[in-house]
Amino acid sequence: MDDVTFAVLGTGGIGRRALEVSQYKDALTPVAACDRHGTAIDFDGLDVDELLEATEGNIDNEVATDGGADAAAVESGVKQHGEDLGVVASEQARPSEDPIQDVIDHGDEIDAVLLALPNYEHDFIPRTAERFIEGGYSGVMIDVLKRSRVIDMLDDRREAFEDAGITFICGAGATPGLLTGAAALAAQSFVEVTDVNIHWGVGLKSGYEDNRGTVREDIAHLPEYDIETARELSEAEIEEIIDDHDGVIEFEDMEHADDVLLERAGICDAGDVTVGGILDVYNDEKPTTTTVRVTGRTFDGETATNTFQLGDETSMEANVNGPALGYLKAGVRRNRAGEYGVFGPAELMPGF
Amino acid sequence: MDDVTFAVLGTGGIGRRALEVSQYKDALTPVAACDRHGTAIDFDGLDVDELLEATEGNIDNEVATDGGADAAAVESGVKQHGEDLGVVASEQARPSEDPIQDVIDHGDEIDAVLLALPNYEHDFIPRTAERFIEGGYSGVMIDVLKRSRVIDMLDDRREAFEDAGITFICGAGATPGLLTGAAALAAQSFVEVTDVNIHWGVGLKSGYEDNRGTVREDIAHLPEYDIETARELSEAEIEEIIDDHDGVIEFEDMEHADDVLLERAGICDAGDVTVGGILDVYNDEKPTTTTVRVTGRTFDGETATNTFQLGDETSMEANVNGPALGYLKAGVRRNRAGEYGVFGPAELMPGF
Repeated sequence: MDDVTFAVLGTGGIGRRALEVSQYKDALTPVAACDRHGTAIDFDGLDVDELLEATEGNIDNEVATDGGADAAAVESGVKQHGEDLGVVASEQARPSEDPIQDVIDHGDEIDAVLLALPNYEHDFIPRTAERFIEGGYSGVMIDVLKRSRVIDMLDDRREAFEDAGITFICGAGATPGLLTGAAALAAQSFVEVTDVNIHWGVGLKSGYEDNRGTVREDIAHLPEYDIETARELSEAEIEEIIDDHDGVIEFEDMEHADDVLLERAGICDAGDVTVGGILDVYNDEKPTTTTVRVTGRTFDGETATNTFQLGDETSMEANVNGPALGYLKAGVRRNRAGEYGVFGPAELMPGF
Repeated sequence: MDDVTFAVLGTGGIGRRALEVSQYKDALTPVAACDRHGTAIDFDGLDVDELLEATEGNIDNEVATDGGADAAAVESGVKQHGEDLGVVASEQARPSEDPIQDVIDHGDEIDAVLLALPNYEHDFIPRTAERFIEGGYSGVMIDVLKRSRVIDMLDDRREAFEDAGITFICGAGATPGLLTGAAALAAQSFVEVTDVNIHWGVGLKSGYEDNRGTVREDIAHLPEYDIETARELSEAEIEEIIDDHDGVIEFEDMEHADDVLLERAGICDAGDVTVGGILDVYNDEKPTTTTVRVTGRTFDGETATNTFQLGDETSMEANVNGPALGYLKAGVRRNRAGEYGVFGPAELMPGF
């Protein structure tokens, strides 16, 4: 496959780490990155080191704009570049009234757009995709969201994506992305899958500052909250929730897009998928080993369980960004073959 | 993806089970099956039940032509249909002087050809592929071989495949197929893979008759043998080897195509891959759990091992044929997108 150019919308934890990991991937050139404040564009390839270094203490991941950024900047020893918050702290970036439009305006030269925006309202990503459609973009769009209902919203726009020539890949991070991919592969031993159980462990002590958005997203999965109420929480309220749980928050039966994505890919019924996990904000060690168990019936009548486990030393960031970029490339391949619409990660796997 | 028609060359254990498993797969229609004696062709779809039932006691898997087939027929209580050995025992099949040519002659209507011929000389599959090229075939060809050197031979013909419009998928069974696919997926956590260890367990008591070809192929991997000398072994000599090992044969550092296929896919160096396994011909229980361990370095500097394990109750047949048909469909997708040449299973995975 020829070179792939891509843009990152959002330069919080996920966006910045995606840029970093892309440096290890052949044939992937980051050409644009933006947040709410500005846009960095360079079709010769962004200088990722400069951009990351300049923005390390200036993260705008939405929750860090009210003082948190400065605290982090001081803590990590990175100089705050004057008044510049977020990506404009990089010398490659320029302030912009409408950074997303900047990217759309250069869409002709961008093969794929990674939407690294975990924490906005449900329809933010579908609406952003609509802006790309209206702007005449035809390429890959990819998100790392977890929520089932966003996929329905994207599906409602399937025809518009098809007409525009857009291949939208949804849920392509660690979970659903990596783990539903593993489930799709593990399912190949079976003629009928009866149960998929996904149980993740994340230890996030030292990664907490970088991943406040993700923690907020996880809290939205607790029974007492939803994505809207979680958005309204102050930093202090989030700290309080974490303290109330002694730093360890356990999730059961999450509304996680794994179920609908596996059903879309023909692996099993959504109702046969359960997702849970444990988040430990006070330790880096994972509170449990991330495990995917796929149980099914073989053609010769046996019942068995195939298992996929992530090593405890792999960080959430490692498990999000490698797969996201992998699926991005798979999406570009589909797009170039003329396959448009909405796809989940498991649909990009061989054979179902 | 639209319907996929496929042919099976060889109706021994692998070919017959592939036909059986295909009945569980959407959008896959078996339209041709042949062995050395004849060809069954029906573009409305073969009646797989009839074909399997009729040939169950008449397996021609090359080692069973000298009396073994009759013994098996008696043992399983299936009536031998007169003089008919192999596929011609089915009422859908006709004897043929050149069954492979029969399939080639209908190539226009066949999207993919599964070469279920484990046990011929090294260059048999490359030479068979050449016949398809000469016959004007343009579609997918797929094998479930294990040997690295066959892949080199296929690679030597890459340009011819490209010119013909053939997408050749090699090594697409349980191993390398399923397990290198798992390794490719597990590798997505890492920016550098340092070690891939594949260790399989197969218990084959009740499946032995159906899988004599595969056992012979495995014996060829023992240090004292190679594929040529293993081909020369009589049934009695094979039994003797098995007896000498009390039915349990252990393999270390096998010449297994997993290494070259993972290198082709950019996962790691071939030298970082080790393959071994244990075959137990006296028990159905697996002597060890089939496990893939992928060790690597994450972008944030950690070293970890991701693990994929097959449930002990999954038979070799289940793990060969599900993946083979999955990769077959992935190959058809590539072929329709105009991607021709030689591909390993890991190259059909998302993202490297």
